[in-house]
Amino acid sequence: MPNNSTALKSLDVCFTPELLHLHHLSNKAVVVVDILRATSCMVTGLAHGASYLVPVSSIEACRILQKSGYVAAAERNGEKVEGFDMGNSPFEYQKAGLSGLPIALTTTNGTTTIEKSLGAAEVLIGAFLNIASLANYLRKSEHEAVLIACAGWKGDFNLEDTLFAGALALALEADFPAVSDASLAAKYLYKAAEPDMFAFLEQSSHYKRLARLNIREDIRFCLTPNVYTNVPVLRGERLVNHQIIKQTV
Amino acid sequence: MPNNSTALKSLDVCFTPELLHLHHLSNKAVVVVDILRATSCMVTGLAHGASYLVPVSSIEACRILQKSGYVAAAERNGEKVEGFDMGNSPFEYQKAGLSGLPIALTTTNGTTTIEKSLGAAEVLIGAFLNIASLANYLRKSEHEAVLIACAGWKGDFNLEDTLFAGALALALEADFPAVSDASLAAKYLYKAAEPDMFAFLEQSSHYKRLARLNIREDIRFCLTPNVYTNVPVLRGERLVNHQIIKQTV
Repeated sequence: MPNNSTALKSLDVCFTPELLHLHHLSNKAVVVVDILRATSCMVTGLAHGASYLVPVSSIEACRILQKSGYVAAAERNGEKVEGFDMGNSPFEYQKAGLSGLPIALTTTNGTTTIEKSLGAAEVLIGAFLNIASLANYLRKSEHEAVLIACAGWKGDFNLEDTLFAGALALALEADFPAVSDASLAAKYLYKAAEPDMFAFLEQSSHYKRLARLNIREDIRFCLTPNVYTNVPVLRGERLVNHQIIKQTV
Repeated sequence: MPNNSTALKSLDVCFTPELLHLHHLSNKAVVVVDILRATSCMVTGLAHGASYLVPVSSIEACRILQKSGYVAAAERNGEKVEGFDMGNSPFEYQKAGLSGLPIALTTTNGTTTIEKSLGAAEVLIGAFLNIASLANYLRKSEHEAVLIACAGWKGDFNLEDTLFAGALALALEADFPAVSDASLAAKYLYKAAEPDMFAFLEQSSHYKRLARLNIREDIRFCLTPNVYTNVPVLRGERLVNHQIIKQTV
């Protein structure tokens, strides 16, 4: 049956979790994005065989899960927290040793944004690393509306999450028209940055914060499209890879 | 004496009043902007001889001031509220009959943003209509930091206020460097829109809302730079024109 409902579909962008209360979530697929680096790490960890991920807001909760057998990752202000197995570098999530294990993680902005998105019809995890698969998943889904929830930086707008929002909005343009001012701005900014996102972000505040921490390679990796094909989705408290079920036509 | 403190100066952009709590205001000149159309009206009214303007949040407060002799302007959702002398069109503020009279006004977004800016070192009113004079005032002022507070639309980001923020950030670039991600984004968007702001905004949600109300001429006027040279500033509860005091060198 042809899909005649495209005209009703829509996409919007929320620049920071501080503005999520302005949106109705219950009828929307919310794509949480924290490019540098929480959601890039989540996609990477699940692509490399972690059985599931549990995002938690506090360091305390993360420590409790660590004691009960989780591989535990904690980051604050861009740096790994003392006493945890991992910080917030996607390269740490590529280690073969994680295969089959559950991961608990807490990050400055990303996990809070997931928590604030819990009223959504479905919560998905987006990154440049899986953008084509994610767009494909949304196109084939029955969702009428998509909201891209940028994690930002401590409540404020940031560029890297906005660029991702613009890229995903453009990828989904034919299926989910995006007409809000935030989505128009995100699309413009992505078009301006696309020829060299790394150079574009070198001016940004978060790049400067992270560059001081010597993680240019992390940034380059997090800006690479389609390294992975998995689509993490929240099921209860756990992020797992969406299982693609082949449908008969 | 040459000004050696430029390196310490800074400018930032706040996309909506919902994010103002993320900023320290007490050491900043806050420029409130609601291009379509509250701050454009304020600049126009004071340029045309209104003695002062009192912005109020509620329609009730506006009505009380009307009864005590103010010319009263009230707008909600883009339309004039029944029973008031004016709505939110800058052309209404050009009437000769306003000369020497005080105006009370309440609007959907602009007056709320002024109220949330009250902790600032100084609250100024910005619009394309007075952008060069405003930039000049800030350059010559002793303010170390400028925050451009966009009124947005019902708490959310909007394009027209962001374009103004980008234009003012560019005009002040040599004096107040702007490095936050929000100010970078605003500058990019203004550069993209500058050749034809009217065409750029035709895609935006607020344009569409207002175009339905048949006020294309209002929009064209509000996007015109430097029609006026006055700089409205909040003194107590009143917006008045800044009095330029010529300094001896």
